[in-house]
Amino acid sequence: MQNIYTDLAMEMAEGLDGEGLRGIEMDSVQQGDVKITTIHVVNDDGAKTLGKPIGSYITIESPKIKENNFVVHEEIMGILVKQLALLRDGLGIDDDAPVLVIGLGNRNVTPDSLGPQVVGKLLVTRHILDKMPEGLVGLRPIAALAPGVMGMTGIETAEVVKGLVGNVRPQLVIAIDALAARSIDRINQTIQLTDTGISPGAGVGNRRATLDEKTLGVPVVAIGVPTVVDAATFVNDTLDIFLAQMAEGTPEHLRDGAEFFRMLTQLEEQDKHAVIRNSIEPSVGNMFVTPKEIGEVVKWLSNIIANGINIAMHKGIDMDDINRFMY
Amino acid sequence: MQNIYTDLAMEMAEGLDGEGLRGIEMDSVQQGDVKITTIHVVNDDGAKTLGKPIGSYITIESPKIKENNFVVHEEIMGILVKQLALLRDGLGIDDDAPVLVIGLGNRNVTPDSLGPQVVGKLLVTRHILDKMPEGLVGLRPIAALAPGVMGMTGIETAEVVKGLVGNVRPQLVIAIDALAARSIDRINQTIQLTDTGISPGAGVGNRRATLDEKTLGVPVVAIGVPTVVDAATFVNDTLDIFLAQMAEGTPEHLRDGAEFFRMLTQLEEQDKHAVIRNSIEPSVGNMFVTPKEIGEVVKWLSNIIANGINIAMHKGIDMDDINRFMY
Amino acid sequence: MQNIYTDLAMEMAEGLDGEGLRGIEMDSVQQGDVKITTIHVVNDDGAKTLGKPIGSYITIESPKIKENNFVVHEEIMGILVKQLALLRDGLGIDDDAPVLVIGLGNRNVTPDSLGPQVVGKLLVTRHILDKMPEGLVGLRPIAALAPGVMGMTGIETAEVVKGLVGNVRPQLVIAIDALAARSIDRINQTIQLTDTGISPGAGVGNRRATLDEKTLGVPVVAIGVPTVVDAATFVNDTLDIFLAQMAEGTPEHLRDGAEFFRMLTQLEEQDKHAVIRNSIEPSVGNMFVTPKEIGEVVKWLSNIIANGINIAMHKGIDMDDINRFMY
Amino acid sequence: MQNIYTDLAMEMAEGLDGEGLRGIEMDSVQQGDVKITTIHVVNDDGAKTLGKPIGSYITIESPKIKENNFVVHEEIMGILVKQLALLRDGLGIDDDAPVLVIGLGNRNVTPDSLGPQVVGKLLVTRHILDKMPEGLVGLRPIAALAPGVMGMTGIETAEVVKGLVGNVRPQLVIAIDALAARSIDRINQTIQLTDTGISPGAGVGNRRATLDEKTLGVPVVAIGVPTVVDAATFVNDTLDIFLAQMAEGTPEHLRDGAEFFRMLTQLEEQDKHAVIRNSIEPSVGNMFVTPKEIGEVVKWLSNIIANGINIAMHKGIDMDDINRFMY
Repeated sequence: MQNIYTDLAMEMAEGLDGEGLRGIEMDSVQQGDVKITTIHVVNDDGAKTLGKPIGSYITIESPKIKENNFVVHEEIMGILVKQLALLRDGLGIDDDAPVLVIGLGNRNVTPDSLGPQVVGKLLVTRHILDKMPEGLVGLRPIAALAPGVMGMTGIETAEVVKGLVGNVRPQLVIAIDALAARSIDRINQTIQLTDTGISPGAGVGNRRATLDEKTLGVPVVAIGVPTVVDAATFVNDTLDIFLAQMAEGTPEHLRDGAEFFRMLTQLEEQDKHAVIRNSIEPSVGNMFVTPKEIGEVVKWLSNIIANGINIAMHKGIDMDDINRFMY
Repeated sequence: MQNIYTDLAMEMAEGLDGEGLRGIEMDSVQQGDVKITTIHVVNDDGAKTLGKPIGSYITIESPKIKENNFVVHEEIMGILVKQLALLRDGLGIDDDAPVLVIGLGNRNVTPDSLGPQVVGKLLVTRHILDKMPEGLVGLRPIAALAPGVMGMTGIETAEVVKGLVGNVRPQLVIAIDALAARSIDRINQTIQLTDTGISPGAGVGNRRATLDEKTLGVPVVAIGVPTVVDAATFVNDTLDIFLAQMAEGTPEHLRDGAEFFRMLTQLEEQDKHAVIRNSIEPSVGNMFVTPKEIGEVVKWLSNIIANGINIAMHKGIDMDDINRFMY
Repeated sequence: MQNIYTDLAMEMAEGLDGEGLRGIEMDSVQQGDVKITTIHVVNDDGAKTLGKPIGSYITIESPKIKENNFVVHEEIMGILVKQLALLRDGLGIDDDAPVLVIGLGNRNVTPDSLGPQVVGKLLVTRHILDKMPEGLVGLRPIAALAPGVMGMTGIETAEVVKGLVGNVRPQLVIAIDALAARSIDRINQTIQLTDTGISPGAGVGNRRATLDEKTLGVPVVAIGVPTVVDAATFVNDTLDIFLAQMAEGTPEHLRDGAEFFRMLTQLEEQDKHAVIRNSIEPSVGNMFVTPKEIGEVVKWLSNIIANGINIAMHKGIDMDDINRFMY
Repeated sequence: MQNIYTDLAMEMAEGLDGEGLRGIEMDSVQQGDVKITTIHVVNDDGAKTLGKPIGSYITIESPKIKENNFVVHEEIMGILVKQLALLRDGLGIDDDAPVLVIGLGNRNVTPDSLGPQVVGKLLVTRHILDKMPEGLVGLRPIAALAPGVMGMTGIETAEVVKGLVGNVRPQLVIAIDALAARSIDRINQTIQLTDTGISPGAGVGNRRATLDEKTLGVPVVAIGVPTVVDAATFVNDTLDIFLAQMAEGTPEHLRDGAEFFRMLTQLEEQDKHAVIRNSIEPSVGNMFVTPKEIGEVVKWLSNIIANGINIAMHKGIDMDDINRFMY
């Protein structure tokens, strides 16, 4: 299963149990419509199984994120703030330490514009801490950049960020990115947080160089939302559903004798995916699947995440401010 | 096959021959990398077969449209100008008659933003014909609007356009829209022109009310480019490729006994599509497939189409001006 | 003074008293940092004096609107909601009657993009009242359009809106626009509401046809914010300040003999403005003055106004929801 | 005069002659509607007089740049290409050496968005030189970034660029920026090129750290267009015109006795500007003046500059390609 592409640790962990979970601690809480899943990868065994580095992966899931319902959005933002604060404290970030936020992705491709949109809504303060509007106190120096994608800049994003970290000298980097999910059911309804940085590969773009503590010298919290499914993955999943449904509708004697059907159902997930990828690669290798309402959903998501960061990172904006009017 | 959704007349006509083509005249010219296909639906028989109204459908196709190559783009634009001029003359539009251009689609969703982007690049002149910059003569009054989509405005686009036509009183409406193709191989490499208006249903949006001579009282030339494939259609097509490839790789004795396989391959196209749509409808009903480079390709396409309209509609900008620097 | 251009009734009324105020009722309330001024033009005398039609003009003023301070923005929004509700009730608009919102201005010129930005943030419902997300009840059918400016469309905005009103059949039109102020001190810190529609002339653009009950057949509430000062007006005002300061700093004996100075100070306001306009017209006739931070301020203002309309117009979103997280 | 703010060397040199021009070589050519002025600051004397570093300053001026006339735009682009090529050769840049283009300014404030818009239209190639579309040869590795302004990022632009130069290792940096002019007559009709980098201060923003060979370690060619005039400067200039016009209209005997008038006219330029700045500083300190059509003019200017860079920097796109269809 590990060859099927997903950026979500939770999707990698699905179906694991017993021995399969060695090195992985997993916990899940339901809170109204929202499910919060925390996965700790505690050692190399876990990292190998999950294909993700050692560290924490928190998933905030709700089918209602993608609805035009500010009551739900506010609730999700509150949860995001708490989880971000936990990561912040776990990493021992000082109250007044500089934080650098990087909005990854292409602002001109809607499902990939989450990062740039979040950057545009942050309360950036690194340059004006001495002249804040009255009543706004307890703010941390925050800097933010949406560096664009390599296709537009000709430069690896990691190169840009490395240069910035050397000059801004933050204690923490927060990277926002649109992700690819395995399942279309997770598109736009899952927010993943991790303290392990952004691993190679991603939603719409083809980013390669990792942003993490090893490459940047400071811890990297990544906030990601799956906004697309890779087209080949999508075909694979719907093929499974299709075959299952065909099988149900097939008379018993046909299914009994159906060597081909047996073959299909016994095909290793991984092999099947390889066949699909090979057969459609020439034309759909760089296609993605996304919902028609992606434009408005990315706007809501960027509001939730930008304000979540504003509140969790600026001590002066506490939890009561969630009930305020923010951008 | 007619139930499979496509906005391209050419895709509907594929595979037809002999009696199947009754009422349909089809002609095709190859010009370097560019293939120009002209379909005339001449009577009700043809209209029924194709599922499209009586009229002309011209398709300009090249795999190079989607490449970052201005030499090719200029060539395509030249062909578009000629075809637009043919439609213009066929409809008997006067040289100085007002033309209203409507850019359909949602400017905030990249593959649906073709129409609004074209409108932004037109040489709009209806309000300034008496004060044109020196050297620009022979211009026609052109008005243009990108009315947005119903999800953003709460108003059927046809309602907006009807009101406009009543006030602007054009002799011709040109409507630009992003379309849905049947085949992912046609995405971003086909421009379709027709003098029959825009029929219901389309690329990313869910437009319902037709814009044509019957509803608006003036002829409607539609220019469309498929920028997406409907997700269910996409699954169907890749499934076909997958099954074909599996079959090739299956030992003879298995295929012989494979009732299930036989069933699959004998399944009517239409039924298979229905099964797919049913099995995945709850989650992917409103999903679409589009390539990762959609952002830049839509920018190029809007340049080609906007300048094609500028040249074909403004008499003062003749074919020599194709070799100029235009926006 | 009436020749000096301003869109603000309040600026026209400044300095009037006694007989000068015949036909004009004026009242003003200070509420913390916010000053609310209500002007009722009750008859033709008042209309003539003010150069504005009979009706109500409410001005919400605070130097803090243009600060990055969400606490203040929320407070302003609350006041806007109350004033909008008063106008709504004064006009007798039914709870479930359709409302059409028109965002005037050019989305590509920052200080003129207020209207289009507000439209993008409205809860538009006319097309989906039967399928609202759970928990959102009591919503009114709202439609919205940002028709662009004549320079981009070739069409008078009034022509577009007339067509729309005929099809949408609203009980009320709300028009949002960026305005021109007389004084640079009012830029970005004043919101004007009126039930008399939008009068000719405006901020950045050159709109001519009025949107009001007479032209559209339904009442028009206009919400405007001055985001620019006309360049000629700006010169005039700063010239006054300059002359006053020079005079203060001039030795008594010079001022006594200064015929020229006397002449300058005795110059009728109106004549001085004419001189300025004549002397600089060729080059600055179409220039405007705006602050450097206009980009972010227009974003905040559009949030305040869009949410003010959402709350005042959708019965289901009551005043308690101000303390929620909205867009 | 040196205290009056302008980014244009040409405006600083106006009115200088004889001894005043020590250390400054100035030459000017008229070519149809276009005037090309070349200023070489050859030593410290010249640098002191002009308030600009030693190096070359080329100004391409035409009142027609700001007209919607592609014939003129193409002509201007041709001149820009030649001048850029001269600077490139003067600096000894190798044909295949990497070039880094920096688009300064705020993409959300129209007159400051020139740099970001140029970056969006460049043929960026650093990452794809091995997989170019057929027929496009002789391309140089070009990288490009629009880093945003300090108000949005919290980071000095120079900090971002320094980091980039360290990683990208270009032989040349080209910086594009919107400038402030002294005279409103130069807005949008002048393109300034220089090989001395971008000096502190600028159009809309308040940039402070210089981008030049000293700070970055590689030569910096700056391309700037004045899109605004500082509001205080604007008042000063129009005040001069006003006073001159008033004086002309004043009877001889009044002017003779007018001490105040004498005082005004004898006021040192510099002092007058200081008075203006002091008297209006509290309210207009951060105001700027710009024309209403700024939106479309910046679009045209960014097309001209982006294509000028494309042609001058990519050897494979030679002068013949000016007569092609480019973006």
